[in-house]
Amino acid sequence: MDAGSGSAAPSQAVPSCCRLTLADALRAGEPPADLFARLAVRHWPHEPDAIDAIRAKADAAVARAAANAVTPIVWSDARYPAALAAIVDPPPVLWTRGDPAAWDGTLVAIVGSRAASAYARSVATTLAADLAGRGIAVVSGLARGVDSAAHRGALDADGVTIAVLGSGLDVVYPPEHAPLATDIARRGVVVSELVPGTPPLPEFFPRRNRIISGLSRAVVVIEAGEKSGSLITARCALEQGRDVLAVPGNVLSGRNRGAHALLKDGAKVVESADDILEELGVGVAGSGCRVAGSMGSAGSAGSRDPILDCLVPGEPSDLDEIAERSGLLPSRLLPRLMELELAGAIARVGGGRFVRVDRPC
Amino acid sequence: MDAGSGSAAPSQAVPSCCRLTLADALRAGEPPADLFARLAVRHWPHEPDAIDAIRAKADAAVARAAANAVTPIVWSDARYPAALAAIVDPPPVLWTRGDPAAWDGTLVAIVGSRAASAYARSVATTLAADLAGRGIAVVSGLARGVDSAAHRGALDADGVTIAVLGSGLDVVYPPEHAPLATDIARRGVVVSELVPGTPPLPEFFPRRNRIISGLSRAVVVIEAGEKSGSLITARCALEQGRDVLAVPGNVLSGRNRGAHALLKDGAKVVESADDILEELGVGVAGSGCRVAGSMGSAGSAGSRDPILDCLVPGEPSDLDEIAERSGLLPSRLLPRLMELELAGAIARVGGGRFVRVDRPC
Repeated sequence: MDAGSGSAAPSQAVPSCCRLTLADALRAGEPPADLFARLAVRHWPHEPDAIDAIRAKADAAVARAAANAVTPIVWSDARYPAALAAIVDPPPVLWTRGDPAAWDGTLVAIVGSRAASAYARSVATTLAADLAGRGIAVVSGLARGVDSAAHRGALDADGVTIAVLGSGLDVVYPPEHAPLATDIARRGVVVSELVPGTPPLPEFFPRRNRIISGLSRAVVVIEAGEKSGSLITARCALEQGRDVLAVPGNVLSGRNRGAHALLKDGAKVVESADDILEELGVGVAGSGCRVAGSMGSAGSAGSRDPILDCLVPGEPSDLDEIAERSGLLPSRLLPRLMELELAGAIARVGGGRFVRVDRPC
Repeated sequence: MDAGSGSAAPSQAVPSCCRLTLADALRAGEPPADLFARLAVRHWPHEPDAIDAIRAKADAAVARAAANAVTPIVWSDARYPAALAAIVDPPPVLWTRGDPAAWDGTLVAIVGSRAASAYARSVATTLAADLAGRGIAVVSGLARGVDSAAHRGALDADGVTIAVLGSGLDVVYPPEHAPLATDIARRGVVVSELVPGTPPLPEFFPRRNRIISGLSRAVVVIEAGEKSGSLITARCALEQGRDVLAVPGNVLSGRNRGAHALLKDGAKVVESADDILEELGVGVAGSGCRVAGSMGSAGSAGSRDPILDCLVPGEPSDLDEIAERSGLLPSRLLPRLMELELAGAIARVGGGRFVRVDRPC
């Protein structure tokens, strides 16, 4: 276990009220272990026992993770997903099973009703398969209904998919999806911010949803009712500056009120994967050239692109540095960086940093 | 037969290429009979026989209309619908069966697939019944599928409905809808710009669609495929400055591509009649007060409304006069006039003219 993962469990164990402060400190470059020590002194100044207890729990969690083939990836790890690092409250640690390279490409979330109709499941499977066939990884929540249909669609198309859990990775919920989680870990990654052993309590799922959207460039909602958790994911996506799209459906069943409400609020209508690709600005002509659409625009922007001008060729910069230089909020900046990356104008390097790529036009 | 209807058939008999010129001349106040005489001299200067033949055909059509209980309403007739008078190419004559007062209130068109699914027919019936229950008349095209479901929905709710045909009124198409046409004429009006006896040729239907939208404040499209005639109605509505709304549906069947394309282009999503009422700006709270929503806004606008300022109390003005004074195009002006009318700030009087109503606030 390396130094980074060794500091994972303590930073996970701090009270949730500290999360924003914690994210800011991590973003500012403070090593997680130092940060934990500082927070511990502030929150439990006269309770060395409490600090020791947290450290013991953390060590137990790390040991349990190791025993269960779960790998923690901390904020400062180069493998930590850059898109998630850009949200206001990124998890300090991601507990993972599978290959974290799964989130290196373009990611699209597909979420929706647990009590999904056959129609919704069919749409989820079809969209996921079509996205996967074009090299886009599908993010979802491993839930019954739309989520699992989306994961299966991507897997059946030999694509990559990412499941974000609302429990520890060794406590798969719903239990009957354990084989699906195993399949996902073989071909993508299963991930949670919750330490191994954490049960799937209802309060974990709304916060889990911010990770689904935070990993993704866009969130597609299928068959969400009026109070669907998918609407939380959609709201998170909007707050994070990601695209929100929705699949229309029957207006008489009441099953689509949430999805239609999103459409009324300006979410893009999705009938097919092409609609999603169009919204992302990536090519829709064929699977051979994923970036045909954006390539042209980025190419024509050339060195006049204000974000490119903030990057020194060969010198990696992190999101905050680029944000400071460009004057753009990280949440607004990230979609542009992703476009530039897809266009080959910049490349992602370790620690969620970006480097400008100069090449002949 | 009055003087107005006596001039109906000749003006209907002129070549279709003259329609725009003809509308402009009628809008300028030229009596239809004078206009026909002038056009006849221009188009057939050396063929008095041709003119006589047209007059003879026209007289026969008027006679046939009278024999079939069909009433022609010419442009200059006070009963001519003001909304239709505002379009760029209004029919010089409307041949009608039923009570033309049917179009005096708020009109909404519901159009869609002829080969409609059970879902589309069910939505059409429900929306039409709900609109009719709130005092809104439903306009459609008497076609199989969505159109007839909408007419029936309005009738079953004891409401008013208007059918616009693509044939003469005595040649109902499809023939099995003759009883429906009879029911509509009893409770609303059946109307066509085509002289009695005209067969339902395919080329008549696209032009018929401009009348459906031209009569209406909004057009609701249900289950239109990619090449549906309903999309023509929607395009006419946009050109005429009317609202376009669409009902979402299944994305896998291919049946809703046209309706979803409208949504992608900004048409409002319709799940229920409330969505339509909201778009019209009329009250959605209950059926007792149709204008609750707009009443407030018009009341608060008071005499500061620039259109009201163009109207002299007690002195009727037609659309062109108001357009000239306000600098607004008639197509843009009409929805505002309708709002003011609903708010009770103006009233519609004979010949498609409007008069300002001054009353205590």
